[in-house]
Formats: sequence, C-alpha cells, structure tokens
Amino acid sequence: MIPTLAWTPDGVRFIDQTKLPLEESYVLASTYEQVADVIVTMVVRGAPAIGVSAAYGVALGVRGTTAKTAEEFAPEFERICARLAGTRPTAVNLFWAIDRMKGLFANLLDSGATLDQIKDRILAEAHAMYAEDIAACKAMGAFGGALLPQAGGVLTHCNAGALATCGYGTALGVIRSAVEQGKQIQVFADETRPFLQGARLTAWELMADHIPTTVICDNMAASIMRAGRIQAVVVGADRIAANGDVANKIGTYNVAILAHEHGIPFYVAAPWSTIDLATATGEGIPIEERPHVEVTHHGGKQLTPNGVGICNPAFDVTPAKYVTAIITERGVLRAPYDEALKAIEKTAK
Amino acid sequence: MIPTLAWTPDGVRFIDQTKLPLEESYVLASTYEQVADVIVTMVVRGAPAIGVSAAYGVALGVRGTTAKTAEEFAPEFERICARLAGTRPTAVNLFWAIDRMKGLFANLLDSGATLDQIKDRILAEAHAMYAEDIAACKAMGAFGGALLPQAGGVLTHCNAGALATCGYGTALGVIRSAVEQGKQIQVFADETRPFLQGARLTAWELMADHIPTTVICDNMAASIMRAGRIQAVVVGADRIAANGDVANKIGTYNVAILAHEHGIPFYVAAPWSTIDLATATGEGIPIEERPHVEVTHHGGKQLTPNGVGICNPAFDVTPAKYVTAIITERGVLRAPYDEALKAIEKTAK
Repeated sequence: MIPTLAWTPDGVRFIDQTKLPLEESYVLASTYEQVADVIVTMVVRGAPAIGVSAAYGVALGVRGTTAKTAEEFAPEFERICARLAGTRPTAVNLFWAIDRMKGLFANLLDSGATLDQIKDRILAEAHAMYAEDIAACKAMGAFGGALLPQAGGVLTHCNAGALATCGYGTALGVIRSAVEQGKQIQVFADETRPFLQGARLTAWELMADHIPTTVICDNMAASIMRAGRIQAVVVGADRIAANGDVANKIGTYNVAILAHEHGIPFYVAAPWSTIDLATATGEGIPIEERPHVEVTHHGGKQLTPNGVGICNPAFDVTPAKYVTAIITERGVLRAPYDEALKAIEKTAK
Repeated sequence: MIPTLAWTPDGVRFIDQTKLPLEESYVLASTYEQVADVIVTMVVRGAPAIGVSAAYGVALGVRGTTAKTAEEFAPEFERICARLAGTRPTAVNLFWAIDRMKGLFANLLDSGATLDQIKDRILAEAHAMYAEDIAACKAMGAFGGALLPQAGGVLTHCNAGALATCGYGTALGVIRSAVEQGKQIQVFADETRPFLQGARLTAWELMADHIPTTVICDNMAASIMRAGRIQAVVVGADRIAANGDVANKIGTYNVAILAHEHGIPFYVAAPWSTIDLATATGEGIPIEERPHVEVTHHGGKQLTPNGVGICNPAFDVTPAKYVTAIITERGVLRAPYDEALKAIEKTAK
C-alpha cells in the first residue's frame, strides 16, 4: 500500500505528490504550520487525505505548544484549528476533521484532563481517523466493486486513489476491489488538467498494482465512450450536499454529462466524512480558485501568451440528477439522495 | 493579418506553430518534401491551411523537377501528390487541394501545355486557392458573425483561426466579424490538449486583435456553461460528411454534447473544401492517431509514468444532431444537412 502520509516520531511524513510519478520523494512536516503548507501546495491532496492530514496537524500543534496548562492552551488551540481550516475551502473532510478535534478538545477540557493527557488523546484520535479512513475505503471497495461489470472499461477522473486517502482509495478502491473479485477491468484515466492527477498519480498507483491503465486527455472521453470502450465511470468527491449534488475535481461535471448522454452509469465513491448535510445543494459549496500559473505553465515552461485571461476553478459541482449511485462505507445510495442520506444518517446515530 | 504561410521566391515561408506563442519564428520549405514535413510535424496545421500548403507543395514539386517534358514529368507528378497526400489522413482539404491540382494537370497535359506553362499555371492555381481561402473566411465571417449574440461569451475549441487558414480564420473569422459588427464578445478558448492549440495559438492571435480572451482547461467548459457565461460555441472542422457529421479536433464532440445539454447553440464554420459529400457519415472518416509523446511529455518534460497506455486520436466526430448550423462561404446550413448540403452543391454547379 502506498504511504500517502505516515506518522513518525519526528512528525508526519508525506509522499510529495507534486513530484510523482518521476520522483518518489518525501516531505516531513513537524509543525502544524508545515502541515498547512503541504495542504496548500498540494504535496498532499484528495479530500480524505486532507482530512486526516489536518487531524495530524492539530496533533502536532498540541504537541508543540509551550503552554503550561490546558486552559492556557485553549486560545492557541483555536488558532491552530483556524490556520489548518484556512488552507483549502472545498473538501469538507478538512472541516469535518477539525470539528471532530474541536469536539474532543472541548470534552477533554470539561473533564479536567491535563495538557499531557490531551496531547495523547488528540494524537490517538488522529491515528483512529487514519485507520477509519482505510477501513472506509475497503468497505466502499466491497460495495462498489460489486457494481462494476465483470469485464470492461472504467473511466475515472483525477486521483481518488490510495494517494487521495490513507490507503486503498475511494474510486480506485472500488476498482481495486473489482479486480480482487476477479473482474477484468481496463481503466481509462483522464489526465485531469491542470494538475494532472490522473496522468501522474492514478496512472502511477494503478501501474504499481498491475491494473491495466490507459491515460487519455480529458477531451477524449466522449469519443472513447461513443466507441463503446467505457462501461462505467467512478469518481471520488470533495463534498456532497444534502441533495446529492457532488463537488469534485474540475471536469467531473463534464464527465457526468458525457456518461449520461452515452447511457453509462456514473458512480461517486466517498466516505461519510465527505457528506455535508448542512449544505442544502451544490450551489452552497465554495469552489476554490487556484493560482493561474497551474494553467499557464508546466514544468517551468510557459504555455500561454502573456496577459491572457485564465480560469482555474479547482472543482465543479455535478448535479445529483447525473449521479447513478453514491458509494459510501455505509452502503450504496440511490436517488432521491436527500431521503437516502437522511435515512442512513439516522440509522448510524 | 497573421502570415500563416506566404509564397516567396525561395519557397513557402511558414510561421512555426509549434513554437508559438513564446517564439515567433519561421520555417522555409523550398521543396515539396519539406512542405510534407511541415504538415506532418504541425509547423502548419488547420484543415484550410493544410490544403493550401499542399497546393504550394505541388507547385514546388513541379518547379523542382529535372524532367524535360510534361509527359516525362507525369509519373513524378503522381509521386509528388502521393507524398503530400500521405501526410495527414483526416482533413479532407488536403485531398481536395491535391485533387484540384491533379485535375488541372490532366487538363494541361491534354491541351498540350509545355512544362514551363504547367509550372506557371500550377503556381497560379495555388495562389488562387490562397486568395479563395481568405475570401471564404471573410464570407463565413459575415454569415456567422450575424448569428452571434450582441454581447456574451463564445467558446471555441482548438484553433480555427487565421493560423489555421491563409488568414482571418473560420471559427475565429466568425468571432472577428462579430466584433467588427460592434458586438461585445468575450472569448473562452479551450486550451485543447495535447497540442494546446487553444492556449497557444487562439489566445495569441485573438490577443493580437485585442479581442478579450480567457483560456480554460478543456475540462472546465461544462461548469462555465452552467454558470451562464457561454452564449454560443463556434468551432472549425477538418471534414464534414454528407449527413452533416463533423470531424474536428479531439474534444469537439465533448463540447458539442455539453452545449446541447446546456441549451447553447453549437456552430461549425468551415469552407466548402471541408465538405466531403463522398463520405456518407462520420463513421467513414479516418481518424489520425498521433504520436503518444504529445500526451506523455510537454516541453521535454515527462508527465506520465513509463509504460502506461496512451490514447492520442487527433480528431473526433460530432454527430450532426448536435450541430445547430454549419457556416460556409456559400451560406448557413441547418438540418437536415444531407438535403441542405446537396441543395447548395447543386446551386453552385
């Protein structure tokens, strides 16, 4: 399993996803500020991985304090959480992880825990979230793998793989599980401009698992669908609204429409931490605009003429009507999503 | 007007489109083999420009012969035409131009013309095709410009501009004409992976004309359409079948479906030389597969892991049902295209 992030005595070790696939190098973050930086610069990316990274960031922040008591530390804890929450706006897993840490911290304060006890408990919680993330991916894989055809082409967009999680992956976990079930899957990986997560990361991790993979430019999907080479689409998510609208990597909405037009099922695989019942529809999801240099340059080389206008939204929203099913660790949901999501939320409580 | 290609006493001078926008350099082709090379390597590209380039290539081939008589030259003429016809398979303008030269040559042979007379007449024909191409673009501009909204966003894919023709452009000619008519057009240019004709060429030539232009990644089109920022799509074509199916740069079919889904008109602008009444439907159009290095590398830098599968079809086919209108120099055609195309062909004869 690919070590997306790993706790070490010196801090959190991240594989540098900006350098893959040509260079396998690692970045050590030993302070919460450094964790914030690796999230902003996309050394680590992918909604579930960002959530667990932020949890470890909080743990590093607590460990690094010079405060003497829990009460003295409380305002600093708020600042640590605010810094980590300010890194990226779209993936709700980030806020989910920080809120979970805030709730735990408040409980520990209330119960009169010492600062040393708090340090231990916060780190243990981050470890728990790490383990839960892998377990959720495995569960999603089992549920979703069953939905894929016995043999055929599966298109995925961006990287919703081991590298976007603590291991195994969401959309790629579904594909891995199908392959483990003996299904003959040919993966088509959208290269996913501008950051090329598909060309660089999805291709790299699927090749490591010997799963047949073909990289295509994002604009080739429709003709490959029309040629009958795609039997299903599986993607991840950065936030799912209460009505089932899905925010995910820019271009996902394109793929969803193309799948719809060709009668191909479009599946979204995401852990429950990606579901945001407090946001009614996709219109309420903030979409991050990334630096324009990601579009205008590649590998230090300029592509566009100086001064031209650029758009670089990192995500788009796919309306629920294009989503065939949402695969979570709690089961497979189908429309109407508002009812399906509420029903599972209720059961889980 | 941008000098895409220009006849000089030493041969044909091409602006090197592989180097734009950062470097404005020129390549001189003084033999027909060199013309074939600049077509293959995409120093010159765009269906109408390829057609006229091939015509000049034939003229250079005739000029360069060591044959003494027209009869002696005839088999060599066939080889010249075959070499130029073998450069790229999809754009029918290439074959149209070569067939026109073949017809002229046969007539000249029949009429007993000398080799010197043939050299002059073939070159004059290439010059005529050059002038006709610009005139056709201007006519398409006038017809198509009227179809664009008084103000709004227009999406284009690839480069169907001055650089794809002898000047003014097909799709970009339509946009230029609308701007000249006083319309307030904001252009969105798909960057158009893998060769980045949109990011590099469309952006460059529209900026030179001070037409507001924003480059987007191909996968951003759907979300920008959904945001209400696109009022029309205009693209060029490499070959239009008798039923109105349109072969054009890879990704055009994606855009057509997205426009259809958002209720946005999708226009194709192409000269009559792009229409191939001998090919019944888009399924009969050969689609060029380009070298995989165009996808795997950029600017010498490798993007994908070694050994991964790659697709690189240079074109796709948009079924006629997604095409709102075809804009030609002979007028604006609407479905049913088979009847509309036949009717105009008849009138023109």
